[in-house]
Amino acid sequence: MKLSTEPYKGVRDFYPHDKQIQTYIFNMWREVVEQYGYVEYDASVLEPRELYEAKSGEDIVNHETYSFTDRGNRNVTLRPEMTPTVARMIAQRQREIVFPARWYSIPNLFRYERPQRGRLREHWQLNVDLFGDESLTADKEIISIGFNILTRFGVNPEQFEIRINDRRIVQSAFAELGLDEETSYALQKLIDKKDKISDFAEKAEALLGKPFEYNPEPNQEIVEIIKQLKKDGISNVYYDPTLMRGFDYYTGIVFEFFDKHPDNNRSLFGGGRYDNLLDIFESKRISAVGFGAGDVGIQHVLETYKLIPHLQRSTIGICALTIDDIPKTESLATEMRKNGCNVAINTSLKKPSTLLNWSEKSDNRFTLFIGETERMNSVITIRENIKKKSITLPESELISWLKKA
Amino acid sequence: MKLSTEPYKGVRDFYPHDKQIQTYIFNMWREVVEQYGYVEYDASVLEPRELYEAKSGEDIVNHETYSFTDRGNRNVTLRPEMTPTVARMIAQRQREIVFPARWYSIPNLFRYERPQRGRLREHWQLNVDLFGDESLTADKEIISIGFNILTRFGVNPEQFEIRINDRRIVQSAFAELGLDEETSYALQKLIDKKDKISDFAEKAEALLGKPFEYNPEPNQEIVEIIKQLKKDGISNVYYDPTLMRGFDYYTGIVFEFFDKHPDNNRSLFGGGRYDNLLDIFESKRISAVGFGAGDVGIQHVLETYKLIPHLQRSTIGICALTIDDIPKTESLATEMRKNGCNVAINTSLKKPSTLLNWSEKSDNRFTLFIGETERMNSVITIRENIKKKSITLPESELISWLKKA
Repeated sequence: MKLSTEPYKGVRDFYPHDKQIQTYIFNMWREVVEQYGYVEYDASVLEPRELYEAKSGEDIVNHETYSFTDRGNRNVTLRPEMTPTVARMIAQRQREIVFPARWYSIPNLFRYERPQRGRLREHWQLNVDLFGDESLTADKEIISIGFNILTRFGVNPEQFEIRINDRRIVQSAFAELGLDEETSYALQKLIDKKDKISDFAEKAEALLGKPFEYNPEPNQEIVEIIKQLKKDGISNVYYDPTLMRGFDYYTGIVFEFFDKHPDNNRSLFGGGRYDNLLDIFESKRISAVGFGAGDVGIQHVLETYKLIPHLQRSTIGICALTIDDIPKTESLATEMRKNGCNVAINTSLKKPSTLLNWSEKSDNRFTLFIGETERMNSVITIRENIKKKSITLPESELISWLKKA
Repeated sequence: MKLSTEPYKGVRDFYPHDKQIQTYIFNMWREVVEQYGYVEYDASVLEPRELYEAKSGEDIVNHETYSFTDRGNRNVTLRPEMTPTVARMIAQRQREIVFPARWYSIPNLFRYERPQRGRLREHWQLNVDLFGDESLTADKEIISIGFNILTRFGVNPEQFEIRINDRRIVQSAFAELGLDEETSYALQKLIDKKDKISDFAEKAEALLGKPFEYNPEPNQEIVEIIKQLKKDGISNVYYDPTLMRGFDYYTGIVFEFFDKHPDNNRSLFGGGRYDNLLDIFESKRISAVGFGAGDVGIQHVLETYKLIPHLQRSTIGICALTIDDIPKTESLATEMRKNGCNVAINTSLKKPSTLLNWSEKSDNRFTLFIGETERMNSVITIRENIKKKSITLPESELISWLKKA
């Protein structure tokens, strides 16, 4: 029986053009975060399962992650998020690392999603974290980086907004209501879905046994950070006390970047401050603030606003027309490579139209044919594939012409 | 109980300096293969288990890979090699892809190694494959790329050798002996270990029931490819009929790059031609030749020959000395970033020696302190961390000075 050529359910194959788009996104991410002095780290996708149980609870780990037992009886999980990993790494070398430490990574993450929901089981995510700076300057920097990433991709600040809240505001509002942990959690989830359900008020009343009013004032930190961001030219930032964020480890400011497009009104990415996460290890207290931005969300935005540029390859396709042309074709390819060109050679000796089709479909920028004319007269004809235009040059001018192009 | 900060058994954490070395290796790989016109692809680390059973056998998949059953009862494997994946992808789009197609990827791969052997369970591997070219030119290109990778890293051609064989030579030699499949396989494994065992002749005789002589002549392809490689300046290539390579899918030329260092005499990487692998799918026959080179082997060579350069970061650390200096520190950071600099800011207001230690240990190239002198006199003092030297400039000259540096 023949094997299927399909990938595993819920994951993606990246054909060269898909990979080119992904590389474009990753490079832009890297460029922006490195401008703020962030350095890249990485780790394995395999992590001990305990790392997630500590903060997410055993039930979530069992049902929403890829977890299995290895033959040495170790419980292993394919990481569903990067924050516990980076916290583990920082905790391990807390004595050597100098703070503030700015770290980023672009890991792939796994979630066990039910296939019928059509959601992906693997995605990539930019993780940016600033450790050891408790001040509001750190929160401001992290939010500025998110803003800069979107605008550098070409998204207009009018097309998105930044919603900001503080976990401490939510906690004091809930404390005033005197809720037990379970009701508090249920209410938090309910507020998180506020915009998506029509009967919020009824549901909240049913939960609390009394009408629920929730419009807490912003605290000093929220007022100050919004003021500072506006001073830096980031004015699409709004206080939103209903912003909850899912992870249990947030302790202060939380934020989300929201796409305002009518067809795509949704959270793009978000993050916040988590000053206590390193407590799960034998570690001194190290404050942290950061965010994670997924590749799928970003790519969707870029497609919505038609912001993915034409990603042209620089490769030159060089084709021999007859068997006698192969040596010259090979030596020219070698010479061009020595001069920094990317050159794909074709010595299949197929007919010119087939060779041209190969060069165009391979996404080569230029096509060079080496035949009798070229050999006899020491000239080269260069075809620019996209423009469908050719020029003929003396062979001696080829390299300098390519360098200019 | 506090959690361990150790990674999962047999995998590596990449702290920023480790990641920097890995990035250096990956970038060099990319640079060389792209000069030959190869384009990058990728896929998920999760693959259906059948993909490996077809050619490796169920037993090997069960014992040497990470395999598990998902909740939808699918058998999943963490890919132990990339070739079956790329074959699957090529087979899936065989009608759209134009050949010859040059593809590369740098996937992470998993092997279930027994921990006590101290071997890694996860590594990264450059995979370079040329599809749809049956000619010797393709084999030659693939071997040339391997050669160029090593020499571009700075390895001298006298420090390594390329061993080359052809599966068809082995097959005809074995066919003459009239061996059954099992004995043939055992003999192949024995020859593969020839250099490592002292009693090869006795073991081979025990296996065959008669003395074993094995010195087959090279075939025409081997003679020709060695000749052509030498013509291209690759002269450290030798015919070695005992070169076996592990994978069952090779059908023609196989090769290995071998480190000649007395303390590290071992295979660095290798590959070969596999013209039938796509037969496991519903596919037309597509010829293929390629190799896989692991990160661990390459890094080991670079360390052995002291070829890892000092990887300096370009980041500028800028520190405010007092609370009054923060606005200027921030605005200078913004200005430098706008001019393409990577700038890490420190507004912790710690004492200068602590700030300098932070900047040096963070691997910043330069340190700038913003204090009263700088504010009052519009001057900037730039310290080059490695040289431990400072110069003072008018603030207006900062950007142009940095651009020159």
